[in-house]
Amino acid sequence: MNPHLGRKLRYGMVGGGPGAFIGAVHRMAAALDGEWELAAGAFASQPERSREQGRALGLDTRRVYGSFPEMAEAEAALGEDRRIDAVSIVTPNHLHRPVALAFLERGVHVVCDKPMTRSVAGAEALCCEVERTGLTFALTHNYTGYPMVKEARHLVRTGRLGALRKVVAEYPQGWLSTRLEAEGHKQASWRQDPAQAGPASALGDIGTHLDNLVRYVTGLEIEAVFAELASLVPGRTMEDDAGILVRFAGGARGVYHASQVSAGEENGLALRVYGERAGLVWRQEDPNVLELLSPDAPRQRLTRGSGYLCAAAGHATRLPPGHPEGFIEAFANIYRSAGRVIGARIAGAEPDPLDRDFPDHSDGLGGVRFIAGVLDAAARAGWVSLADIEAADGGAREPARRAASIRNTAAGARQ
Amino acid sequence: MNPHLGRKLRYGMVGGGPGAFIGAVHRMAAALDGEWELAAGAFASQPERSREQGRALGLDTRRVYGSFPEMAEAEAALGEDRRIDAVSIVTPNHLHRPVALAFLERGVHVVCDKPMTRSVAGAEALCCEVERTGLTFALTHNYTGYPMVKEARHLVRTGRLGALRKVVAEYPQGWLSTRLEAEGHKQASWRQDPAQAGPASALGDIGTHLDNLVRYVTGLEIEAVFAELASLVPGRTMEDDAGILVRFAGGARGVYHASQVSAGEENGLALRVYGERAGLVWRQEDPNVLELLSPDAPRQRLTRGSGYLCAAAGHATRLPPGHPEGFIEAFANIYRSAGRVIGARIAGAEPDPLDRDFPDHSDGLGGVRFIAGVLDAAARAGWVSLADIEAADGGAREPARRAASIRNTAAGARQ
Amino acid sequence: MNPHLGRKLRYGMVGGGPGAFIGAVHRMAAALDGEWELAAGAFASQPERSREQGRALGLDTRRVYGSFPEMAEAEAALGEDRRIDAVSIVTPNHLHRPVALAFLERGVHVVCDKPMTRSVAGAEALCCEVERTGLTFALTHNYTGYPMVKEARHLVRTGRLGALRKVVAEYPQGWLSTRLEAEGHKQASWRQDPAQAGPASALGDIGTHLDNLVRYVTGLEIEAVFAELASLVPGRTMEDDAGILVRFAGGARGVYHASQVSAGEENGLALRVYGERAGLVWRQEDPNVLELLSPDAPRQRLTRGSGYLCAAAGHATRLPPGHPEGFIEAFANIYRSAGRVIGARIAGAEPDPLDRDFPDHSDGLGGVRFIAGVLDAAARAGWVSLADIEAADGGAREPARRAASIRNTAAGARQ
Amino acid sequence: MNPHLGRKLRYGMVGGGPGAFIGAVHRMAAALDGEWELAAGAFASQPERSREQGRALGLDTRRVYGSFPEMAEAEAALGEDRRIDAVSIVTPNHLHRPVALAFLERGVHVVCDKPMTRSVAGAEALCCEVERTGLTFALTHNYTGYPMVKEARHLVRTGRLGALRKVVAEYPQGWLSTRLEAEGHKQASWRQDPAQAGPASALGDIGTHLDNLVRYVTGLEIEAVFAELASLVPGRTMEDDAGILVRFAGGARGVYHASQVSAGEENGLALRVYGERAGLVWRQEDPNVLELLSPDAPRQRLTRGSGYLCAAAGHATRLPPGHPEGFIEAFANIYRSAGRVIGARIAGAEPDPLDRDFPDHSDGLGGVRFIAGVLDAAARAGWVSLADIEAADGGAREPARRAASIRNTAAGARQ
Repeated sequence: MNPHLGRKLRYGMVGGGPGAFIGAVHRMAAALDGEWELAAGAFASQPERSREQGRALGLDTRRVYGSFPEMAEAEAALGEDRRIDAVSIVTPNHLHRPVALAFLERGVHVVCDKPMTRSVAGAEALCCEVERTGLTFALTHNYTGYPMVKEARHLVRTGRLGALRKVVAEYPQGWLSTRLEAEGHKQASWRQDPAQAGPASALGDIGTHLDNLVRYVTGLEIEAVFAELASLVPGRTMEDDAGILVRFAGGARGVYHASQVSAGEENGLALRVYGERAGLVWRQEDPNVLELLSPDAPRQRLTRGSGYLCAAAGHATRLPPGHPEGFIEAFANIYRSAGRVIGARIAGAEPDPLDRDFPDHSDGLGGVRFIAGVLDAAARAGWVSLADIEAADGGAREPARRAASIRNTAAGARQ
Repeated sequence: MNPHLGRKLRYGMVGGGPGAFIGAVHRMAAALDGEWELAAGAFASQPERSREQGRALGLDTRRVYGSFPEMAEAEAALGEDRRIDAVSIVTPNHLHRPVALAFLERGVHVVCDKPMTRSVAGAEALCCEVERTGLTFALTHNYTGYPMVKEARHLVRTGRLGALRKVVAEYPQGWLSTRLEAEGHKQASWRQDPAQAGPASALGDIGTHLDNLVRYVTGLEIEAVFAELASLVPGRTMEDDAGILVRFAGGARGVYHASQVSAGEENGLALRVYGERAGLVWRQEDPNVLELLSPDAPRQRLTRGSGYLCAAAGHATRLPPGHPEGFIEAFANIYRSAGRVIGARIAGAEPDPLDRDFPDHSDGLGGVRFIAGVLDAAARAGWVSLADIEAADGGAREPARRAASIRNTAAGARQ
Repeated sequence: MNPHLGRKLRYGMVGGGPGAFIGAVHRMAAALDGEWELAAGAFASQPERSREQGRALGLDTRRVYGSFPEMAEAEAALGEDRRIDAVSIVTPNHLHRPVALAFLERGVHVVCDKPMTRSVAGAEALCCEVERTGLTFALTHNYTGYPMVKEARHLVRTGRLGALRKVVAEYPQGWLSTRLEAEGHKQASWRQDPAQAGPASALGDIGTHLDNLVRYVTGLEIEAVFAELASLVPGRTMEDDAGILVRFAGGARGVYHASQVSAGEENGLALRVYGERAGLVWRQEDPNVLELLSPDAPRQRLTRGSGYLCAAAGHATRLPPGHPEGFIEAFANIYRSAGRVIGARIAGAEPDPLDRDFPDHSDGLGGVRFIAGVLDAAARAGWVSLADIEAADGGAREPARRAASIRNTAAGARQ
Repeated sequence: MNPHLGRKLRYGMVGGGPGAFIGAVHRMAAALDGEWELAAGAFASQPERSREQGRALGLDTRRVYGSFPEMAEAEAALGEDRRIDAVSIVTPNHLHRPVALAFLERGVHVVCDKPMTRSVAGAEALCCEVERTGLTFALTHNYTGYPMVKEARHLVRTGRLGALRKVVAEYPQGWLSTRLEAEGHKQASWRQDPAQAGPASALGDIGTHLDNLVRYVTGLEIEAVFAELASLVPGRTMEDDAGILVRFAGGARGVYHASQVSAGEENGLALRVYGERAGLVWRQEDPNVLELLSPDAPRQRLTRGSGYLCAAAGHATRLPPGHPEGFIEAFANIYRSAGRVIGARIAGAEPDPLDRDFPDHSDGLGGVRFIAGVLDAAARAGWVSLADIEAADGGAREPARRAASIRNTAAGARQ
């Protein structure tokens, strides 16, 4: 149960109907630690499919809705002891913002999949609304939920690597090596549809993970990007491959690459960070391990669950070393921590600082800005400064500045 | 929810109080898929500690008990719509049998940790009771819950390796490299106490996993064993290391070794099986991978979630390839399948054959016999036939024979 | 012995004095198969150090020279049964061309370290001289000597991957993480001295290996490059880090990165190539393995020495699978093959087509053009077409065109 | 050249004719460092095939012999400035002793493949002859030539692991998964012929490597062995699989297993040693790495060539870290060191202590005793003390005792 509330946190889900992938992951992640319970849902745009999913999940049929506005309204009308505390948004990208706004304005905390929105202006506006309401907004950049990623962050932030010099981040996948979107493949179709995905496809889907992971671990701010985007499968219109060069404030350099046409690759997300004194390597497909490289000493293989790890890594682990934890557990770390922060807010209590460690709206804004910058650089075939990127969305100057300050506050809180 | 019942399966837990390790694993495994709910518990032998745990878990305080007999009786007195359907036994070994009997006789299905009992006679008697009641008894030999172990079994059983020749099974751990049991370490203490652990320590704790894993994957019957047991940490009285040579029916040979003093090892359980045409390798610390070795072709790296795997492996997986699943997910596979078989029995329905795939009392009896045989071989410094092993427990001839027939039935059912 | 000559091939060495690294590698590579013998040397610019090295190697003191012009002249004056057949050039880059010319014009075949020259104009001129003399020029881009690299080439060239889409090539090293060149470190000093190294440092030293390896395996022609070069160690003037984006003719894309400040990395050269049907991964630090990735089948691990490999891979191997071969053996493959081609030319015989498989002057020119293009792209912060790159060196139009035809001829011969 | 002689050491080879495997390895190992030169040979029992090999190697035809006695006699008759200094014996096992004796009695130093002889009595007699002549006898237990094996030895011997507790040594191969010896396969045929191989097949071929490697690294003396030998391929008469349990003096335990029917395995030799404070793992197929395991610290990955390694490991390496060395280089370490010790003896000089580090006749005797003990244990199905093992060969008491003292002296010298 939620330690601040003495009961489980109640949540509703928008999206995640029959055949969806990520909705089931959210539900398992929420269930794992026994601190959340699913109480309502608008699982699909077709009411019958929403009800089908609700039945399969054993939900009270009165709380399975045909649309998210209906759900937002109906749940708000329930008593405090019944209505949902939070909503999980697991829809295609174009719905993230309207769904979030519908619930935020009714006082419901939000867990939302990434990327946060399709545009920078949209992200800025959503950030302002989150700030205005004071509610919790958790973004499921799930890879930062891995304990060894937290250890990587700790090692960098406590100076173990010295001044950073080079970052290599990559995410090769192969599942879009054929034009699945032309064959009615649901996951592929919306990702290759600009109306749903926004202006970026592979870049938004997996490229933002690179950005988020690098920011989380290193704290480096991107100064400028150069990029090459390509549609490597004949007939495809949106990009399925990206190569990105990065200049960080302070002089470090980065090479990022993401691809959904690296035939035979599964989810080869990997991060390498090198500083003046040491380097580190983390690979998502072997997530219980973090390698620490030194110029004059043997490479060390740090493992999840070990006594020598930092508090954040320990807080994010459930099993002793050698008994692997995986993707769902990392995802569950976001739910557990966000749930406790939400519970503490509801209860008027102070959350454990270790539970403040999850991606939020400021990370979401950062990710959307990164996408915009990369798209711009690729279009111009030149370096683009991320500081200039708001302009691309028109005159939303004020929110941008507010959002920038948000970021700093949030980042500061998390240090 | 449980697909046969249209509600979650209700279970109680015996053991798993504050500070226990495996109880929390059982709870996460049960929670993961949303098909079980914890409804009652006798978490510790001290009532206050049991209540403390119950509170932390958000249980109705009236269903948190000070002892397992009290729990068995009180739950049986509840209405059918409230009382527990099953009990999870997560105590030290000596309590497995009495707790199981207390619930079986009240019609409650059982999930029990391994080894099943301390003695062969005890195991045989418990098997008879399970058979008599017709209830489900699931034994959490969790490693067989891994999808790639199921694929290994499939490859062997469908002849991909040809006639089997050699099996190498190993389980190096290092956590008992110092005499933790002398320092009040709870997990170490009961495992090194014959009254609680039974006559075997490392052998019962991890050696039985080797036996179970080999049986599950290969179906080979052990004809005879030779063994060397040792207490390698000064001052320790029970064995912390075992080397075992095995002769299988049909002529294959086996080398097993298990150790809790392999300094620096975590949970290095690994299985290698070689046949006339191919070999396979599986490593628990990298559980999403199964390697298939061929004499004249490249080694293949099969990965969990892939489309080319067998139905049993697919049934036991939640995520696409490249997003690692781990120990809890494997554990949860036992809960999910056992829960569905239990639900089907309660509902008078037929379970999915793929859900019959979990270790049961016959596996428990096999494991206890293996322990007894190995102890005997080490004591005699000679080969011991497992077929002769019942005698060691005295004249319980009749149950033994019945139990033998049980095993065959169960194994047949699972094919 | 050399199979065409019935004796060992005699060679002299320029460079490779006491304390040098690569000279000793060349000597071991030449010695390994018993087909070459060292007969002369001008090992250092200081005559005394040259003699010291000659003595340590047991050379006839009359054939240890104080300078390469002296050696070229004196050896030419010896009888045909004594003088060297070939010269190995293992000096810093600036000497490659003058040394090569001195020997070519006296009819001596050449083995030369890479990069071939400091400038494109120099490379074109040297190519013309090689073509004019008809002598053999082998460039020790040693990584293409690895058997599994040859298998990779074979798989790509025979269509196993389908049309190529993406190439990732990387070479992280960490040995220049401190400013060794300021501490008198010999290897570091000349590499960071433009007079000796030419206009590129890390790019020439290890970046060209990426270019050469990709060309060798894929046959892809680079259309344009974009690059970011950086000096990441404070006080350093030449680049120690490079990120390069590549557009290939036909539409495939590439990401290359090379660094000498990736603290803790050793020689992490790795190549990944993805096509429409499959992908492959090769890592220099585990060179006996080539991984073949498929979208719908298990990843395959091909190993050196196996019966299923192509003829070129088999020709380049000495030991059965499982007995690792390494860097020296790969290097020796260049010596063995080049030596046999040289021997065949001397003997007026036809070499085995499998021995024609070593990098030559056309690869050298390609590498120098690649360096020039990358330098130009980084300077302009924009895409640069390699086809335009000759211009950078001024008006050497004619040689350039001739050299281009050379490349095609040589590449054709090697197919 | 040999540093003590100012010239290369001249050697002859017995065995290693056309089609042989290990002869070519010896020649490459001898050639690599330029300190040995092949001067004579009796390469095959058929003179024509011996001459064929001699021609292919470019030898003076007068020094290619039709038999080893002819070679021993003729070489002894040559002048000191021409005759061979040493002989390499690369024949099947049954010829090791007679060939060695023929050359030892003429003052020729010996490099011999393993196992040294077929019987313990034979090994003892040969040891006495080596001692009597004072000549050098190097046994090519090549795996101890790997630098990281030397580092492993260093770590154990300097107490990094504390008191040793457990050793796991394994050598799975798969190449005899079919009855190659029935198909005229040369390598398989002599190994499965007791007249040539002696009483053991897989045990002599690869089992002795386990024994030698464990002794070299740990210094542990075997007190007793238990074993199971099997012929797992139908129709085969000698063993192709061995499982061995070991009790060491001082109480440590060992598990060894070797198999030539582990289908798909290449040369999976691996060693794991665990002590009270740390453990280590070395795998022959990844020989440049040694893993050091600690209970409370990250696993360390030590790599060949690194500055932090011991002097013996450094002495045995040619390349910086990250440029892999392999099997031939390890083999060459034995040649280089033995050659320098031989050269020093010839020159009346003192060899570098680091060059004394190669297996000798005492290791050979130990290996043959190990074979005899294991055969005896398997036959008796009981523990056998290695101290009792001489008796098996009859009354050769006196040599045995002398040989025992030899071992101690030699071992002492090597410390």
